[in-house]
Amino acid sequence: MRQRNKPWADEFIQENEQLIIPNPKEFKGKWKELFNNENPIHIEVGTGKGQFIIGMAKQYPEVNFIGIELAKSVMVSAAQKVIKSEQSNILLLNVNAEDLREMFAPDEVEGIYLNFSDPWPKNRHEKRRLTYRSFLEQYKEILVPSGILQFKTDNRGLFEYSLVSFSNFDMKLQEVNLDLHAIDDPENVMTEYEEKFSSKGQVIYRCRAIF
Amino acid sequence: MRQRNKPWADEFIQENEQLIIPNPKEFKGKWKELFNNENPIHIEVGTGKGQFIIGMAKQYPEVNFIGIELAKSVMVSAAQKVIKSEQSNILLLNVNAEDLREMFAPDEVEGIYLNFSDPWPKNRHEKRRLTYRSFLEQYKEILVPSGILQFKTDNRGLFEYSLVSFSNFDMKLQEVNLDLHAIDDPENVMTEYEEKFSSKGQVIYRCRAIF
Repeated sequence: MRQRNKPWADEFIQENEQLIIPNPKEFKGKWKELFNNENPIHIEVGTGKGQFIIGMAKQYPEVNFIGIELAKSVMVSAAQKVIKSEQSNILLLNVNAEDLREMFAPDEVEGIYLNFSDPWPKNRHEKRRLTYRSFLEQYKEILVPSGILQFKTDNRGLFEYSLVSFSNFDMKLQEVNLDLHAIDDPENVMTEYEEKFSSKGQVIYRCRAIF
Repeated sequence: MRQRNKPWADEFIQENEQLIIPNPKEFKGKWKELFNNENPIHIEVGTGKGQFIIGMAKQYPEVNFIGIELAKSVMVSAAQKVIKSEQSNILLLNVNAEDLREMFAPDEVEGIYLNFSDPWPKNRHEKRRLTYRSFLEQYKEILVPSGILQFKTDNRGLFEYSLVSFSNFDMKLQEVNLDLHAIDDPENVMTEYEEKFSSKGQVIYRCRAIF
């Protein structure tokens, strides 16, 4: 649907293959080579239009960020913003993050961000939620032992579910915030969605956990 | 302070020693004998004026409930209500619940309820919070392995703290509810405080966890 609005998306993605890496499985275990430095790698699963990852890349220039986004039309928006930002510590992957272990080696990643992931509210879709145990298994494998999973959402049901899921996966919560915008946190980088919904008074939840 | 309003509290407590057990340490390991049946024992730490424990005792007649409350003037209100309710599955303890292991044997308890506990918001008072690890150690010892700790509060900071504390104590969350009254749950028994604050639109949090 969305792609019809951007018939040039395929071409744009092909033309920007230094930024939108076309064959990420080939770089498993070699991402630092691609960034050409030894900085830690953090990934965002579901990058959307890129506001979060660009804000993070600016705030933490000594971290390499990889944004994963399946939707082509959204990915091109993110890519255009990354190009405009001139941040060299961002790469993008226009792939389905079905199994991150195909793209990242064990211990290759030091941080994972899930922002406003699809809540999949129906019980029969539990396995699609990015905090379901099969995804947690992936995160655990690619993260270093001290690596942090940070999760933000405005969806109460998904947050409740995820806290229980993390607990039953033996993860350790480092922080739980049940109203992220109750206090102004200058270090919090907002997504587009977060900016819109928190300005309407919607509660935003955040937690950080290690495996 | 409060006791001045009820100079007859001491006398009332002494006169009702079948209900308000004066020397609970003597009954460690023997509570079922006192109830004169083999039903499971659940305890509420901080019973207040008793609405919760009486409601639970009515709803679960095959469970024995023990309510612990230090404040004398509040305890007498609870005791008066228990007497009026004619529930025989409730006992009360007018003691400081500093160490529950002095009053309950290992595995003697099958459920523990913490309702709207004092949040002790200052960092230097962390050890006084009823979800601090030294209390969790007590709960773990007196609870059967499958025993549940249920915690309700309207205090965001205390709830956030407690989820992290439970996680770091290796407890497993069974349920997290971040807006208990968003859906009407006929099984939820409200405390006096909960009734008052939820009617004002205050969010009530609840979680259930096992050790």
